[in-house]
Formats: sequence, structure tokens, C-alpha cells
Amino acid sequence: MPIQFDVDPSVARLAEATAEFVRDVVIPAERECGGSVHDAPHALRETLQKGAREAGVFAPHLPERWGGHGLDLRGQAVVFEAAGYSVLGPLALNCAAPDEGNMHLLEKVATEEQQERYLRPLAAGEYRSCFAMTEPAPGAGADPRALRTTAVRVPGGWRIDGHKWFITGAGGADFAIVMARTEGGPGSPGGATMFLVDAGTPGMRIVRNIDTLDESFFGGHGEIVFENCVVAEEQVLGQVDRGFENAQVRLGPARLTHCMRWLGSARRAQDVALAHAGSREAFGSLLGDLGMVQQMLADSEIDIEASRALIWRTAWELDTGSRAAAQFSSVSKVFVAEAVGRVVDRSVQICGALGISASDAPLARLIREVRPFRIYDGPSETHRFAIARRVVKPYRQPRPAGSAGPAGS
Amino acid sequence: MPIQFDVDPSVARLAEATAEFVRDVVIPAERECGGSVHDAPHALRETLQKGAREAGVFAPHLPERWGGHGLDLRGQAVVFEAAGYSVLGPLALNCAAPDEGNMHLLEKVATEEQQERYLRPLAAGEYRSCFAMTEPAPGAGADPRALRTTAVRVPGGWRIDGHKWFITGAGGADFAIVMARTEGGPGSPGGATMFLVDAGTPGMRIVRNIDTLDESFFGGHGEIVFENCVVAEEQVLGQVDRGFENAQVRLGPARLTHCMRWLGSARRAQDVALAHAGSREAFGSLLGDLGMVQQMLADSEIDIEASRALIWRTAWELDTGSRAAAQFSSVSKVFVAEAVGRVVDRSVQICGALGISASDAPLARLIREVRPFRIYDGPSETHRFAIARRVVKPYRQPRPAGSAGPAGS
Amino acid sequence: MPIQFDVDPSVARLAEATAEFVRDVVIPAERECGGSVHDAPHALRETLQKGAREAGVFAPHLPERWGGHGLDLRGQAVVFEAAGYSVLGPLALNCAAPDEGNMHLLEKVATEEQQERYLRPLAAGEYRSCFAMTEPAPGAGADPRALRTTAVRVPGGWRIDGHKWFITGAGGADFAIVMARTEGGPGSPGGATMFLVDAGTPGMRIVRNIDTLDESFFGGHGEIVFENCVVAEEQVLGQVDRGFENAQVRLGPARLTHCMRWLGSARRAQDVALAHAGSREAFGSLLGDLGMVQQMLADSEIDIEASRALIWRTAWELDTGSRAAAQFSSVSKVFVAEAVGRVVDRSVQICGALGISASDAPLARLIREVRPFRIYDGPSETHRFAIARRVVKPYRQPRPAGSAGPAGS
Amino acid sequence: MPIQFDVDPSVARLAEATAEFVRDVVIPAERECGGSVHDAPHALRETLQKGAREAGVFAPHLPERWGGHGLDLRGQAVVFEAAGYSVLGPLALNCAAPDEGNMHLLEKVATEEQQERYLRPLAAGEYRSCFAMTEPAPGAGADPRALRTTAVRVPGGWRIDGHKWFITGAGGADFAIVMARTEGGPGSPGGATMFLVDAGTPGMRIVRNIDTLDESFFGGHGEIVFENCVVAEEQVLGQVDRGFENAQVRLGPARLTHCMRWLGSARRAQDVALAHAGSREAFGSLLGDLGMVQQMLADSEIDIEASRALIWRTAWELDTGSRAAAQFSSVSKVFVAEAVGRVVDRSVQICGALGISASDAPLARLIREVRPFRIYDGPSETHRFAIARRVVKPYRQPRPAGSAGPAGS
Repeated sequence: MPIQFDVDPSVARLAEATAEFVRDVVIPAERECGGSVHDAPHALRETLQKGAREAGVFAPHLPERWGGHGLDLRGQAVVFEAAGYSVLGPLALNCAAPDEGNMHLLEKVATEEQQERYLRPLAAGEYRSCFAMTEPAPGAGADPRALRTTAVRVPGGWRIDGHKWFITGAGGADFAIVMARTEGGPGSPGGATMFLVDAGTPGMRIVRNIDTLDESFFGGHGEIVFENCVVAEEQVLGQVDRGFENAQVRLGPARLTHCMRWLGSARRAQDVALAHAGSREAFGSLLGDLGMVQQMLADSEIDIEASRALIWRTAWELDTGSRAAAQFSSVSKVFVAEAVGRVVDRSVQICGALGISASDAPLARLIREVRPFRIYDGPSETHRFAIARRVVKPYRQPRPAGSAGPAGS
Repeated sequence: MPIQFDVDPSVARLAEATAEFVRDVVIPAERECGGSVHDAPHALRETLQKGAREAGVFAPHLPERWGGHGLDLRGQAVVFEAAGYSVLGPLALNCAAPDEGNMHLLEKVATEEQQERYLRPLAAGEYRSCFAMTEPAPGAGADPRALRTTAVRVPGGWRIDGHKWFITGAGGADFAIVMARTEGGPGSPGGATMFLVDAGTPGMRIVRNIDTLDESFFGGHGEIVFENCVVAEEQVLGQVDRGFENAQVRLGPARLTHCMRWLGSARRAQDVALAHAGSREAFGSLLGDLGMVQQMLADSEIDIEASRALIWRTAWELDTGSRAAAQFSSVSKVFVAEAVGRVVDRSVQICGALGISASDAPLARLIREVRPFRIYDGPSETHRFAIARRVVKPYRQPRPAGSAGPAGS
Repeated sequence: MPIQFDVDPSVARLAEATAEFVRDVVIPAERECGGSVHDAPHALRETLQKGAREAGVFAPHLPERWGGHGLDLRGQAVVFEAAGYSVLGPLALNCAAPDEGNMHLLEKVATEEQQERYLRPLAAGEYRSCFAMTEPAPGAGADPRALRTTAVRVPGGWRIDGHKWFITGAGGADFAIVMARTEGGPGSPGGATMFLVDAGTPGMRIVRNIDTLDESFFGGHGEIVFENCVVAEEQVLGQVDRGFENAQVRLGPARLTHCMRWLGSARRAQDVALAHAGSREAFGSLLGDLGMVQQMLADSEIDIEASRALIWRTAWELDTGSRAAAQFSSVSKVFVAEAVGRVVDRSVQICGALGISASDAPLARLIREVRPFRIYDGPSETHRFAIARRVVKPYRQPRPAGSAGPAGS
Repeated sequence: MPIQFDVDPSVARLAEATAEFVRDVVIPAERECGGSVHDAPHALRETLQKGAREAGVFAPHLPERWGGHGLDLRGQAVVFEAAGYSVLGPLALNCAAPDEGNMHLLEKVATEEQQERYLRPLAAGEYRSCFAMTEPAPGAGADPRALRTTAVRVPGGWRIDGHKWFITGAGGADFAIVMARTEGGPGSPGGATMFLVDAGTPGMRIVRNIDTLDESFFGGHGEIVFENCVVAEEQVLGQVDRGFENAQVRLGPARLTHCMRWLGSARRAQDVALAHAGSREAFGSLLGDLGMVQQMLADSEIDIEASRALIWRTAWELDTGSRAAAQFSSVSKVFVAEAVGRVVDRSVQICGALGISASDAPLARLIREVRPFRIYDGPSETHRFAIARRVVKPYRQPRPAGSAGPAGS
């Protein structure tokens, strides 16, 4: 069975239905939530998800037993891109970050009881969740080993203390998955554990919603303080001290599904630019007949196709459990995040004044949305460091004794 | 007298006083006006301008007879960069766009009566103004010759009809300088005239303030409709049918003063990144000791120095009335607008989560501010076209007859 | 059958055998042909092709009836990349340009007699060939419609007159496929015909071998003059006046096979850089542990993977006869040509002095080889123009009458 | 005395005379030395230098007492650019690397006797010289502190042992300035000394001329072995153990004069592209009227002007002994080396087939010449590291104890 790029007919149908739903239902709703989705009304989410269910496109990523369409990552690649054509599309399909990644994590590492209690309502859209890992300096950021939030055993469970921020979806979330150090100190590689913490647990407090450049994540990006926050033993998610390994279960695919959704944004931006270039004149020519505009349009097509090819490749590596999946995951994250940024930037440039008007075209919004993508889920530099380290490894010569010193990334 | 880069001591003193004033007075005020300056209270502007007068740094660009420091463009280059360190700095010094360019225009082409009536209060900060040239498609945008707003002679003056948008500072402006066609039709090169139109003149109506990506222009970017708007003969600014030529009087220097102010933004962003890189650790190293961070910091230094060198060169060309000034003006506009964008983008990347938080650092705001700079005052493509046309001209071979035809790629 | 990237086991085996053969036989032979392959001895080619036959890797692209392995383009993508690891590899496997493309063309459009006479010996490596299309200005270059070489009917056949240059492989070729105009004049889209012209035909004269930046094409790049060169009727290849359409049969896949081979060069350059980075120290660190070096290595991995993904995608489009194949072919040509150039450039930078020494590493040679790839087979600009035109087309609004006129920027 | 960019009239006259001399005498001679200047006949150099003397443009950089025009670096910036318009121009004016830098070094640190013996004939063009610093791995390369060549005191002088390579101009040089370690071991910062070693001194042996990508340095790039090479005490140049400091006397200006000369190459390449764009047609348009070509031409103009502005600024910093000179020197080296590479690359692309033909235009040669410039005299990465370190320094927070480890560049 050779290399092939045919999309499975059932996936293609779902993607088409998604595209129609986004065009007819979701995009018209974009204006309703005005500037920021961060604190959009809960009702908007309910309406959109109801629409997605009626259109038969809800939860494409979930196994059928959890009410989804059971797509593997290759199938998700096609459908999520269609959903991402609007920043509200993934929310409508219940496949937005961070819920989508959390569902995957719960499906893989939660106990049956935990799945019933957390995954079932999350899959149904009744719950929302967040993943609380990132900390303010000098805590866990690009380097997760800097983790400072601690969990220590207390009678009947664990006490969590620490400080988290940029926790996407925190506002209004029904529960949080919290990463805390259960062994070692900041800088040590092991010894982290994940905990399921219900909203309202004493000692967990959302201190603010951070005012970020992007504004399309339902629930915003919260700053959370844990002070003497005690949870029961059964709230441990996965095994004690295996938090970092288990987080990889979430992060590998979650990084890629981000790429899929953002690629939809890039396609949207390019289509807006094409419509403008095909109708507006300047200097006696159609804009789309001017060489510099053609160059931008062509470069964006190239960026989109290269992004899609890399995403599909990575999805296949992950679907087949390949050892190369981690490397491809980093390669895709860096390339797609930067390519999507370039595409949106070019679309803005082609559309000129219209490109920077927030009310007259979606581009001014998209330029804000895509910039943080080069930072979220590991900044480009961290992934480049990881990519390089892997390829240098087999060529690494032993260094003479005394030539000590860790080098910089 | 050879090439030299010494800054005149009096200019250096003024720049230093400006830097101090920005640091001690203006930056603390940034938070006061919350998100957008577009509809900041008039009182903020008054307070800041009062502060600038007390600090002895008000109106560096104006001749002494109009209450300024009489700096030529080279002097302005140094002082405006210091002012631009805060997006509110130029406003405080009364050298922000579009007022600064309008003062220059009025000084050069207005009659004495017009100067008394418009320039005097503008120079004093009592008035604000706007320059109404850009029109929605298919009107005047990147290509000014597409101008569609008309002015026709009526008894006692002129009647203006048309539609303008992205008119910076329109909201609350005391008067507008309006470009209208007085001869020929859209596409014809000549025949435009500028008019001084007082706020409140019947027939001129601001229909909305456009919600743009950037938000640091006092008065925002307005959309204005002129319907049967009649002004008296003495409201003609400059000569009838010479509007395009006279606009160049404004645009050449105005483009460069934009560069000067934005360079201050770049310096600010780089300083924020340096402070972060010098204090935050990752992967066991100071951020500023990691190679990829060093590369970004070095590239931003290079961009800043190259921008400054080009701005100074262009200022000298304009100050000395050189024929090369127009070419240097375009070269600077393209390079500086793109370089400033790169610098801010790198600073955001270096600062990570902090870089995209609007409340915790100025970077998320700056990334919004600098993007439109590549479009305002002529998009990069228009300037590249102009640059290329000038250098190809002496090499242009006569084409054989009949080889006409539309161009393309 | 979903998206998948598994390489067929028989293809994988052939690719591995090719990689071994290149490593053990071809690379050691690189030094033998000194600086330039352009006028390497015929014996070198014979020896290498004999080796390839013995290794069982000869002619991977040819159908079995012509003595090959019958790979489709996806299979070729994998094997040609392995062959391209040395600039001499494709020559050894008899799949180098221009012979490889000419075999494909002859297989598709030649008569049975023509196949026996030209394709059989070409497939066996007994013949070499060239494809004579490009002309000096103002003839056919990036724009094939500018074709000026003419063929007019004379008793018993056709008389060809014209001037060609940059005809790869011309020196020592046994026959040429010549594109000549049989209808219309320069600039008209149709009316070209291909002719098979044997070496030694009176009136065909190679006037020089052009001294080019690259030097790895056997036979070099020749300049050919046709003066009163008469060929028989049966030398017409394909149909009269259908030369441009038939050339597409050759150019689509030929462009892509170029990409496959050059990707092997990029992989070679990156491996040289990795070996250097893994063994050399600077500033107290292993080179490969320095952040700026890691960034270059990571960017090259990304470029290589994105190139490969696009090549495979395009091969699938061509293999399945998709209507999107032409667009993907242009997308791949632009991306891969530029990516390969970046990879080699970074490898040179990483290797420093060694990178620019022609005798101590293959990089100085590769930098010369890959630069022209952005020009050969359609410069990047021509492909960008084609890509943009295709995507703008569905958005193109009818223009109002009278708004014609030359385009520009 | 404010910022100004007027070129001194006497400098302008000298630059114009140089431009004429290069156009009328040097460029016609380019073809004579065929491919490589590395082993061009001595007579060519004599003829060209004779011509320069007659044209009154010989040795612009030398003080009048040494037979030159006494230009400071700002004056050199203007004249060297004119000379660099041909790769042979600097040789003709006796201001090519490495002789030019060596003259400067000898003028600053040599004794009067040494000046008489070495500087006088070098200034007159009777001698040629080289600067032997770079060593094969793991010796001194980008990191000079890795120096391994040693000099130890022996009766009557010093014995030098070591291995140097990429020593520009070594072939045929009358003497070498050799950097050797006189204290400490590889990696230690101090303890190097410079020695004047006459050609023919026993123990100094040029083992080969390295076959490099570039080929325009008279005498090539030699590999030299020192084995028991004994020189007298008076051959020490500057003070013992102060070699690194004294080398800076040479390297700061030498790096900048490289930039000046290479900028001339960029101007040449752009002029070739302009001539092509102004005369050749494609797709029914003049090449220079096509948007993508205009973009390349404009970007090259911008690169050239930004390079010139930075060079002039740096020259002024060096001329006035500013503390910022080292930083500007690095900024200029990185920017100009990369900008010149981009300009030549674009010119090649614009000229297409002609751009890669070594015999039909100078571009194929220039692309080979300018690539190594990003490596010679400190690779871009080393300079970026230095630039970043300087700007981070004032922001560097003390790190907590125990957070050891030098990080990588």
C-alpha cells in the first residue's frame, strides 16, 4: 500500500458538512460576540454546539462510545481545518483547546470512575475544563522542569500550593487538571503529578483573566493561585510522579490539533485576500494582476500546502505510533505556527486599510489570534532546540574530560 | 566638512530632556487611558501637553515664531525617537500625526490669515486637526490618482461631495484638510485641491470611528461623508488644482517623522526584551545567554541601527533640499516600517507569555500599533514600485512599436 | 484507504540499495572527475552505470519493458532522493536530467519506430540526449511563447533555423529534441512542434559549452545554432503544432524529479553539517550545542521534511492524474528549489572555512549546484505567477469597460 | 556641527577618478585573468597598479608620508566602494585585503625599523603580505582564544611551531604576520604575540593553496606549516603577549574596509540587473515593469543604502575613537555581509540564465565571491553573539549561587 493522500470518503463528507455549518451558522455568529470571546456568554457556546449536533458534526475527534465520530488524527486533520475556518468553529464542534486535549488525556490515562465523572460531561459539552501547567517566572514555562507548584501528601489526599498563569479556559471551567511537583525541586526532570481539581475546591482561586493579544479562547487565559488546596487521593490523574510523561500523551496530539485548527484560520485569511485581490483595482490593474500581490498570494498558497502536508504526515506518524512522531510534531509546530502567521500577515498587507479594520474584515482579529501560536504549546525556539538535539545526537563525539559546561539552547 | 554623525549639543539636551519626561511622566500615564487612545479623554492630552511645556520639550519641530524649538529634520529625528518611546510621547510634545504634518503643511502653503486662524491654535495644542485624503474603494488609496471626492465652484466658494475613511484624528478634530478633485476624473493625475473645512460645517459628517488593529491615535480613524458641504473661497489651501503637488510638501517629511516616532517604539520593545533576557532563566541558563535569544537581540540591534542611519540620511537629504530626497524617503519608509515590525515581533517572542499580555508589558499593544505602519502613508509595495521605477528609468530601452500590452507577474 | 506515508517495501529496498551504492561506489568516484562533470570522461559514466546495474538499482523510473524497475512517481521520489545524495548518483542510475525526462517524453508521445531507435538505447545508457527549448533573448526563456526558432516544411521534411542555449547535456548527446515554431510568430501561444535531430545532422552546430556556476551536468550546457538544418518527416515527435502541449508531458514530472534529486543534495549537505556540529568545538561548547547552530540545523530539518512532504503529495497528484497536479508541481518547484538552497547555505555557514573549501568538503560544490535550480525549469517568479493566477481566477470580478491598461507594481 | 552626509569635495573627486579608472582600465582586465585571481600572474598586478598610479588613485588609505592620499575611514568608505566595483579594483589601488589591513597594523604598532623594512615596500606595491592567524580545528577559528600555534624563546629569538590555513594572500607573499601563543594554553584569553616572518625563513612551508568557492584574492588562501621556524627577537611585532589586543587594531578597520569593498560588488551586481531589467522583455512587458522584478530591484536598493549608511556611521565612530566603534563594527559586518549576499543573489535571479553564466556576465563569479564574506573575519554568528552580549550586559541580574554553567552563544 503506497504513499497516498486520498481522504477517506466518510471523512470528506464530515469535512464538507463542517465547512457548510461553519459558513452558514458559525461565521454569522462571529459578530455577536463582539470583540473578545474570552468572556462570551455561555449561551453562545450552547447555541453553537446545538447547531453542530443538528448538523451532525459534533465531536469529530471522540470515540463513538463517547458520542463522537471516532476520527483518527488524519481524519481530524481534515475536519479540524474546516472547523478552524472560523475561530468559533472548534468551540461549536467541541474540539477547541483546551477541552479537546483534555478529553484525549482523560480517555488515555483516567480511571473508569474519573472518565464517568469528568470525561462524560466534557464530551457532551456540559462541562468545560482547563489544563494548569504554566507558571509565572521563575516557574514552568518553555522549560517544564522549572515546575514550582507542589503537592504534598496530607491525611486523605494531597495539598496543592502554587501559582499558575496563562491557563486557557480557566474562567468558568468546571474542573482543572493541575500539574504539581511531588518529588524533587525546580529543575529536576521527574516527580510531577497531575490532579483533577473541581471548580470551587477551597484554596483554588482565579485571581484574574489576563488581557492577552489573542481573544478567541472561551474562558480566556486565567491566573490561578493554589493555597492550601486539598484534594482527595482519587483525584490523582494517572500515576504519582509520572505527570511529565503523561502530559506528553496530551501535548503531542494537542500541539498538532492546534496546527490543524490554525491552518483553517490561514485558509480563511487567504480567501479574504483573494476576494479582495479579485475585485479591487489599483494603478489601473486588478490588484490580483499586480506582481507583488501575486507573489504574496503564491507564497501563502505554498505555506498552506506545505503546512497541510506536514500536518498530515505528523498525524500519520502519531496514528501509527511511530518513534518519529515526536520529531514530526515539533517540526509541524514550528513550521505551521510561523507559516500561518505569514499567511495572515500577507492577507492584511494585500487588503490594506481593510486588513487592519476589525469591523470590516476578520483579518485584524486573526493577526491578533495567530501571533501567540508561535509561543503557546512550546515556543518555536524550544521546539527548534529539541529538533536539533535529536538530529545531532547520533553524530555527537565524546568530548575530552575537563571540557565541562552545559551549553545553551 | 566631512560626513559626521555628531548630534548638535542643544539637540542632544532636548532629546535627553524628552527621554526623561517620557520616562517619568508619559509612561506612567499610559495605563490611565486603558486599552485605546482613540477615544481617550481630552483632559489626558491637556495634562500631558502641560507637562511637556513645563519640561521645556513642547513642539520641538515648530519654528520659534510658532512657539517651538526650531529643529530641522535631523534634530527632529533625534528628539522624535525619544518621544516615540511611549505611544503617548508625541501627543504630549504636540508632534504626533496628523497634527505635526498639518502644521508643516500650513506653515509652507497657507496664507497668513489661514496661519493665524489654523496654525496658531494647532501649534499651541488648542486645536486638533485631520488630513482627509484616503477614500474607500474604488477611490484614492495606495494610488492617490483614484481620487473621487469632488469640489465644484458654487457662488461664494466650493461644494464638496465625497466619502473618506481611515482619516486619522478625525474624531474631535477642530478642522480637516480635505483633498478633492477640481478637474479631471478618477485616474487622471492632476486637478486636485486642498480645502480647510471647520468642524461643524454643514454637510461634513463623521459617520463612525473605525475599529482598527492599532489604537494609539488620539481621535481614532474616522469615516467621513461630505454631502453638499459648502466652504468659502478663502478656505482653499494652496492653489486650486495643485493639491497633489502640495500634498507632497506634507507627505515627504510626514512619512519620515512617522519613522522617527516608530523607531522609539522599537527601542522600547527591545529594552523590554533586554530586561527580560537579563533576568529570566530557562534551561539552566540566563535567557540572554541562550544562542537563539542572542540572535534575536542582535538582529533587533542591527535593525534599529540601520533604521536610524537611514532616517538620519533621509533627514539630511530633505533638510538640504536634495533631489534624492524622495527616493530616500521611500527607502526609509519601507525599511523602517518593516524593521520596527520585526523588532517588536522578536521582543514578543523573547518575552513569551509576558509578550502577549496586554496588561503586564507594553508589547502586546506595540505589536498592534506597528503592524499598520507598513500600510499607512503608502504601503510597502507602493514605495517599492516607486523605488524600482526610479532606478530602472535610466536603463530603460525604447520598446519596439506594437509591443504594448498588459503586464503581469 | 486513508492518507498514509508508508513506503512500499519493494521501493524501500530499492532506495536502501541505492543509498548503499551511492555511499560505497558513487561518492568515492566524486573526486575522480575533479572540478566539473560538464566534460567528464565518457568512461566515468560507463563505469558508474555498470556499477548501478550490478547493484540492481539501474533505471528505477523506466517500465520493466524498457529495462527498469517500473516505479511510479511516488516510488521515484524515494529512490531519486537516495540517488541525489551524490551529484553523480542520478547519472549512475541513468535517471539524471535531461535524459530521464526525455525517456518519459519518448515513452508517452513517440511512435513505436521512434521508441526503438531513440528510447531503447537511451534507456540502456548507450545514448545520451538533450532537450533544446531555451533561446537567448528575446527568444523563449521563462516565457516559452517567445519561441523564435522556426521549422518550415520543405520537400521530404522540415528545415529548422534558430538559436538555442543553456541546452543541458548537449555536448556529446546522440540526439536532440528540438522545439521549433511551425505556426504563428513569437508571442503567439500555439504552433510549436518537437523534432528528433540526430547528432551530426548537417546544419546543427554546438558553438560552445557555456561556463556556468553549476558544473554537475554531464555534457554541460550547450549553445546550439541551427542553420538550414533539414530533418525528415518521421523526425517529428508527437503531432505538428502540438509541441507546447506535449512539452507539458515532459515538464510536469521532469520538474518534480529535479526536486527529488536536489532533495538528496540537501540531505547530504545537512549530514555534513551534522557531522561537523557533532565533533567540532567553539567557545567551550560542542558546535551542535550552540543555540544559533541548533537553529540552523533545526530549520534545515524543517525545510527537508516540508520539501519531502510536498514532493510526495505532488507525486501522488501526478500518479493519479489529478487536475491539481499542475498547481502542486509549481508549488513544489518553488518551495523545494528555495528550501534546498537554504539548507546548503546553512550547512556552509555551520562548517565555516571548511564549508567554502571545494577540496575538503562537498559544500562549496553544492552551493554552486543548487543556486541555478531556482532558475532552471521555470524561475521561481514564473511559477509564483502561475500559482497566483490559478487561485485568483475564481475570484476575478469582471472589470468595467475602458479600464484596460498596462499593469505595473 | 550637525549630522551630515556631504562627501568632502577632494574625496568625491578621488572617488570619481577611481570609478573612471575601474570602468576604463580594471573591468576590461577582468577577463584576462580568466577564472581565478588566486594564481594570476604577478604582471597583471603590476600593470594595474601602474595604471592606478597614473590615474592618481593609488593607495587612497595611506598617509601621505607613505605615498597615499591620507583618507580617514569615511573617505576610504567612499573610495573603496568605487574600487570594489571590480574584484580587481582594490588590488589595483593597493588597498586589497590582506595588504591593506597589514599596512594599517604596521603603521600603528611596528617599530621605525620594521616600518622601513616592511611597510615601505608594501605601501609601494613592491611587497605582498599575509596575516597568519586562522588554524584548522581544533585551533583558532571563529574563536581566536583556541590558538594552538606556539612561539617559545630560544637563544637569539623565538621558535614558532604550528599549523595555519585559509591564510589569504599567502602564495607569493614576501612576509607573513604570524599570531602565536607565547603564554597559556588553548582556550586562555591572553598570551599571544605577533611575529614578522620573511618568506623563505626555514621552517615555514606553504603546503597548498586551498581550492575555495571564492577566487578573487591574489595569492589565494594558503595552508602553512611552521616546524621549528626560528625568527630573531626584532621580528616581534608589537609587544610580547599583547598579540590579541594588537590584532584588534587591525581587525576593527579591516572588517569595515571589507564591507566597503564588497558594497562595490553589490552595486556592480545591481547595475547589471538594472541593465538587464531595462532592456529585456518577458510576458509582453519590460522585465523592469514586472512587479516581482521591481520588488527585487527595490529591495536591493534598500540593502545598498542601508549598508552604506551603516558603513559611514561605523567609519565615523572609528575615526573619532568612539567607544561604540566595536559594536558598530560588528553590526556593519553582519548586516553588510548578508545584504551584499542578498543583492547579488537577486541580481542572478533577475538575469536568469545569464545570471549563472560565468562568461557572459560577472554575476556567477560574484555569487561565489560574496558567500564567504559571511564567514571571513568572524562569521555572522560570532558577531551576533558579541552584539547581544554587549547589550544584555547592563541588564544582567546577578544569578543565584549554584546556578552555574557558561551558556552557549
